[in-house]
Amino acid sequence: MLTTETVERWLREDVGHRDVTNHVPGRTTGRLVATEPGVAAGVDAAAAVFDHLGCDPTPTVSDGDAVEAGETVLDVSGAARDVLRGERTAANVVAHAAGVATRTRRAVRAARTASESVRVAATRKTTPGLRGVEKRAVAAGGGDTHRLTLSGLVMIKDNHIAEMGLDGAVEHFRARKSFATNLEVEVESPTAATRAADAGADIVLLDNLPPTAVREAVERVPDDVTTEASGGITLESLPTYAETGVDVVSLGSLTHSAPSLDVSFRTAGR
Amino acid sequence: MLTTETVERWLREDVGHRDVTNHVPGRTTGRLVATEPGVAAGVDAAAAVFDHLGCDPTPTVSDGDAVEAGETVLDVSGAARDVLRGERTAANVVAHAAGVATRTRRAVRAARTASESVRVAATRKTTPGLRGVEKRAVAAGGGDTHRLTLSGLVMIKDNHIAEMGLDGAVEHFRARKSFATNLEVEVESPTAATRAADAGADIVLLDNLPPTAVREAVERVPDDVTTEASGGITLESLPTYAETGVDVVSLGSLTHSAPSLDVSFRTAGR
Amino acid sequence: MLTTETVERWLREDVGHRDVTNHVPGRTTGRLVATEPGVAAGVDAAAAVFDHLGCDPTPTVSDGDAVEAGETVLDVSGAARDVLRGERTAANVVAHAAGVATRTRRAVRAARTASESVRVAATRKTTPGLRGVEKRAVAAGGGDTHRLTLSGLVMIKDNHIAEMGLDGAVEHFRARKSFATNLEVEVESPTAATRAADAGADIVLLDNLPPTAVREAVERVPDDVTTEASGGITLESLPTYAETGVDVVSLGSLTHSAPSLDVSFRTAGR
Amino acid sequence: MLTTETVERWLREDVGHRDVTNHVPGRTTGRLVATEPGVAAGVDAAAAVFDHLGCDPTPTVSDGDAVEAGETVLDVSGAARDVLRGERTAANVVAHAAGVATRTRRAVRAARTASESVRVAATRKTTPGLRGVEKRAVAAGGGDTHRLTLSGLVMIKDNHIAEMGLDGAVEHFRARKSFATNLEVEVESPTAATRAADAGADIVLLDNLPPTAVREAVERVPDDVTTEASGGITLESLPTYAETGVDVVSLGSLTHSAPSLDVSFRTAGR
Amino acid sequence: MLTTETVERWLREDVGHRDVTNHVPGRTTGRLVATEPGVAAGVDAAAAVFDHLGCDPTPTVSDGDAVEAGETVLDVSGAARDVLRGERTAANVVAHAAGVATRTRRAVRAARTASESVRVAATRKTTPGLRGVEKRAVAAGGGDTHRLTLSGLVMIKDNHIAEMGLDGAVEHFRARKSFATNLEVEVESPTAATRAADAGADIVLLDNLPPTAVREAVERVPDDVTTEASGGITLESLPTYAETGVDVVSLGSLTHSAPSLDVSFRTAGR
Amino acid sequence: MLTTETVERWLREDVGHRDVTNHVPGRTTGRLVATEPGVAAGVDAAAAVFDHLGCDPTPTVSDGDAVEAGETVLDVSGAARDVLRGERTAANVVAHAAGVATRTRRAVRAARTASESVRVAATRKTTPGLRGVEKRAVAAGGGDTHRLTLSGLVMIKDNHIAEMGLDGAVEHFRARKSFATNLEVEVESPTAATRAADAGADIVLLDNLPPTAVREAVERVPDDVTTEASGGITLESLPTYAETGVDVVSLGSLTHSAPSLDVSFRTAGR
Repeated sequence: MLTTETVERWLREDVGHRDVTNHVPGRTTGRLVATEPGVAAGVDAAAAVFDHLGCDPTPTVSDGDAVEAGETVLDVSGAARDVLRGERTAANVVAHAAGVATRTRRAVRAARTASESVRVAATRKTTPGLRGVEKRAVAAGGGDTHRLTLSGLVMIKDNHIAEMGLDGAVEHFRARKSFATNLEVEVESPTAATRAADAGADIVLLDNLPPTAVREAVERVPDDVTTEASGGITLESLPTYAETGVDVVSLGSLTHSAPSLDVSFRTAGR
Repeated sequence: MLTTETVERWLREDVGHRDVTNHVPGRTTGRLVATEPGVAAGVDAAAAVFDHLGCDPTPTVSDGDAVEAGETVLDVSGAARDVLRGERTAANVVAHAAGVATRTRRAVRAARTASESVRVAATRKTTPGLRGVEKRAVAAGGGDTHRLTLSGLVMIKDNHIAEMGLDGAVEHFRARKSFATNLEVEVESPTAATRAADAGADIVLLDNLPPTAVREAVERVPDDVTTEASGGITLESLPTYAETGVDVVSLGSLTHSAPSLDVSFRTAGR
Repeated sequence: MLTTETVERWLREDVGHRDVTNHVPGRTTGRLVATEPGVAAGVDAAAAVFDHLGCDPTPTVSDGDAVEAGETVLDVSGAARDVLRGERTAANVVAHAAGVATRTRRAVRAARTASESVRVAATRKTTPGLRGVEKRAVAAGGGDTHRLTLSGLVMIKDNHIAEMGLDGAVEHFRARKSFATNLEVEVESPTAATRAADAGADIVLLDNLPPTAVREAVERVPDDVTTEASGGITLESLPTYAETGVDVVSLGSLTHSAPSLDVSFRTAGR
Repeated sequence: MLTTETVERWLREDVGHRDVTNHVPGRTTGRLVATEPGVAAGVDAAAAVFDHLGCDPTPTVSDGDAVEAGETVLDVSGAARDVLRGERTAANVVAHAAGVATRTRRAVRAARTASESVRVAATRKTTPGLRGVEKRAVAAGGGDTHRLTLSGLVMIKDNHIAEMGLDGAVEHFRARKSFATNLEVEVESPTAATRAADAGADIVLLDNLPPTAVREAVERVPDDVTTEASGGITLESLPTYAETGVDVVSLGSLTHSAPSLDVSFRTAGR
Repeated sequence: MLTTETVERWLREDVGHRDVTNHVPGRTTGRLVATEPGVAAGVDAAAAVFDHLGCDPTPTVSDGDAVEAGETVLDVSGAARDVLRGERTAANVVAHAAGVATRTRRAVRAARTASESVRVAATRKTTPGLRGVEKRAVAAGGGDTHRLTLSGLVMIKDNHIAEMGLDGAVEHFRARKSFATNLEVEVESPTAATRAADAGADIVLLDNLPPTAVREAVERVPDDVTTEASGGITLESLPTYAETGVDVVSLGSLTHSAPSLDVSFRTAGR
Repeated sequence: MLTTETVERWLREDVGHRDVTNHVPGRTTGRLVATEPGVAAGVDAAAAVFDHLGCDPTPTVSDGDAVEAGETVLDVSGAARDVLRGERTAANVVAHAAGVATRTRRAVRAARTASESVRVAATRKTTPGLRGVEKRAVAAGGGDTHRLTLSGLVMIKDNHIAEMGLDGAVEHFRARKSFATNLEVEVESPTAATRAADAGADIVLLDNLPPTAVREAVERVPDDVTTEASGGITLESLPTYAETGVDVVSLGSLTHSAPSLDVSFRTAGR
């Protein structure tokens, strides 16, 4: 959900106190065009930007749709001054979100070459201020959002284990978490994975393990416990991890290092 | 200047309503470490995040400093709960900003191979909500921020020229802009560049021209008019543009497509 | 996490543009006192209020502690003007949160008379603007927060089932939700409960069922599926539901109808 | 006046970053129904919530109207996704405000059994963030809002009197307050009430006095000075206070301890 | 009460995304100096600006103090960059508020030449965004703030009287207002003033009447009803109104047309 | 660009929690009327206020238009309650902005008596919170906005020169500023003006110099360097400065000391 507050903040940081060149009379139409192929995302956000400015935007694709080079993703009409005020912000948010969606789809396809069922997930390594936009873009690309906030999943890390022991930490947090929330334990060896599953983890995070160790952990852990591999996995090494049978492979790069998709705003006649 | 409002927004989007695992007693120390070489940026923002949480952060490098793999960029101590709450956001902002600074420095170095004086500039294609963070990261990397907002520079584009003619548009906007603000005209040929300079442009933007046309425009335009080349320029083609003698080469990719720098937060003992 | 923005909003709505009587010179001390027995909550929020005003607050109990009538929950010292400005807001937030915690503990105790393990959970029926404060107060009282936001748990309701069928809806949302998030299905009969479990629900919500039907559903549903009873359950009927063996009983009244705990702010000498 | 900022804050705290189950296509209609009898309040706020989401809400009762069990208070139509997003927040604000209005009306009726003219007033003991909503709900229930903020009435308390003496304090604050603002003095005995009236109080607050002492104070104080009784008064003791002839009886419980009114949101067909 | 949110908004509008010249190393000291005589106001706001930036401000006068030309109103020390960032905003708020206070004191003195007891009041004609700052500056200058918001005083105007009649309107609003709030009736003749007083007005506003008519109204209205003259009164005509015996004379120009007081920020050594 | 956030803040500070007298049924029309001649400004802001309240405003003049006494600047229709809620804020912003525009036009006319080409500019001495409103009002009056923020122009002051020398400071900041931004040097003598121009200043600020010294500096400085006179210049001394040939004369008083234009809101029938 993109709030008025967010849209105004985005516009305010771009426009400044007096934008002389946008004082153009009359009405105009324009369209936001993908100039390279990719996956649409952020189109609702772009529409919200134009809508807030009193323009009349019409998305022509939905988030998650594949787009061709040259394909229009959004049409807009309105007072020339308002259309011009919104175009850069609208283009920037689509470029950014579609970049994330496109990279995610590429990752999902890479994973599919090795496994029908593995999920490709993002992390909390998102761009500050864009958690929602990026997580929804990951979903648009076919990825798994993973937890949306710190409050959405209890993750036991090595510092907890160092302090309370594995069983102690699981017991401690299981008592404090809601029944509605899952509990994940981060481990660094197949042995620890088994122990975490035995202790009652819903999900076991296999952190920075090589594919062989991931496979071993996956085999040891009971089927009703979800396994996740994470840490330094790239688009290149993703298939190797996918074929271990792990349930989820997560990559920070889906959100923090996706190049933006090339998009361009064209006013009528261009 | 990073406001309390921004820091709280970043933390709120990450933390959610109840972050069970951060309720760890006692105090801790930690450090933010670059795990690959690059250029530091966003360190003040990371410090502001921890500071807002009541922790005691100490930057160990300044924005713009080159950092080695393994180099600490910020030390922090504080209540364990507060340090843990801030670490992801602090790491995310440094990773993002340092990614921009690192890519900028790479671009500046590429340009330097062909010209001692050319400036490498960013554009308004920034990530929504991060205009200031990214522009300051560009500066940290040795790049030129270009205009910070729509209000900071009057840019005459083809739609203005279509409506008022080149001379008419320059005259129109020169009368409306402040003496403190420069006027730039976007042109698509060397001939138009000369005409824009004659009409009174302070800066001429050579948009989507090949290097040979840029060189021709640069030679024609008087020395006291600044020339800028933009449009589809990559790190690879940058030196070729730089050696045309153009004053400024601008690239949207400095901000919209920089992969983040790998950074990691390590608590004491890791 | 209580933000500066929240504290300022609370103070602003109470203080107005010019509070003549608080312009008292010198420093003072005061304490927030529970004037009836209950369970402490919101003490950190009260401390944040005074802290924001530049006072020096010291909580003397922790959220979740039982307090006696007359027991101090927070000491504060500071400029008289600032202490006086904060006292009403600080008292109001503790009174409200402790009211929720106290009612929750009463409910938990009632449930314990019938079941050692049943969880007593809140719902999303919270006071607008106080989701976090109230959910943390529920936890302080020994209750289960249940989902914190709409995004924290996928809940399939009758309108989804009407549209897609039970199996269709579960399949549809299982594909769209993250592996980190659970899926709950709301049902209105023991038969439907079994079907929901078979379809793959992690949690089955037994909505508005009498205790006998809840017991039947609980017996039918496999052990690894969590059962929750909800709808019109009061503190009086809670034990009867608890003894059905259901895993969770949830009550909106924990948050929306808890009378506040009596607290009073006393300056030095009173 | 309910601001966009408030509505967005309420929705944001409920929705989170990605609410999978609300992504339902098509349009729907629904209605907010009181499921127990009471007094309507907060209906405009609920309408503002749906309006902000682009839905089309129509209140069917006005704040202050008595409603029967089963009576609709608001109809709404709109995109299914938006109606579903708003329903919980809209229901929560009506439940809360109508709870306050209902309790207030009950108190007013209790007072009317003993006095035709006594006013039943709320205090500043409101739920943080809801000062305006609750004060307007008190008015809807037929109660008196009392002062809305600290700045709306000058209240002299014992700490002021301890420092400056009663006459000194009245003189001090009468000089500093606006002619538009009243001055109230808090006293703890009938004698002090007379002295406060003589000193120039517009209103005398009889704090924590038993009904007999209130009656004595009321008899002694001149008619053009308003008398208010407060402190530990319950719905049960209210008539006894009302029949003392006091002008105003104030109760914090109108706002801080009103159980919410049962309301339910029903989509078409339920 | 000046909030963090306000201070940040003021600084943000002045600083922009990158303020190159403030990046000065080291610490500095400075002082805010009145360069013409007047009345201090807004000094706490200036202190809040510097305090927010992490500087150490020390007011050397209090709001309401007379200051000489050349007199320091605030000393500050801090990091040079932060002091420089705050100086313009701090100077602007003091210049504006002290301008209001100075004009108010001048008006009060003019009124005192004709009446010992008349109050000189401001109106709601304040600069948008500065209601609190300006009202407190009026008080610093010795003026009466009048109502702070629309909610602070019930004002019956001609449109109400046209609709309900004078008696009807007073009765209508007396029933709806709190006992804590006064009721003022705006009238346009001495006869109407008497009728308003008889109907139960606490205050009668004599709008746009010449001094002779004001005097007549004052004589007719009972002593316990406050009289206020307003409408087109200037500093020049103020004494003539004051000597009519009216209780209050109000002028919009105290807030909307006060020239700012000349203040200057001087760093060490200037 | 006036944001929703700003409009809500303005309304909130005026309305308070419960504005009894605005609860008037039915619809009404009204108009905002200038009651003295001047220059229109802020009309869009007033329209935004009414628009936010759901009214239908129609500006009848544009910012910068000369208006006669009695001329309507904006018509509005809407629910009576909403029109009444907005009228004071709408009138206040137009009165303030039009006051600035009117004073600016007066200054521009004074300058025109002595020079055809001199620009009359505002400074950063604006009212806190109103930077954009006031700068746009200056433009409406025919003045030059000067820099909008600290980031819009690099200004070298005596403290920079004291530290780095004039040439050093120019070199230092020229390297750090963007090519898009101008560099101005503040000097206190004609000799220093020449040195600043030689060092590479785009603009030379002649601070607190008498007209004869300004003339001397203007004659010495090359034509392609802009000259600006500032410091203690009044409407009276402005022509004398204008005839020196200086390019720009700047006055803080355009924004900080402009009396507001008299405007009045009239509902139908008045």
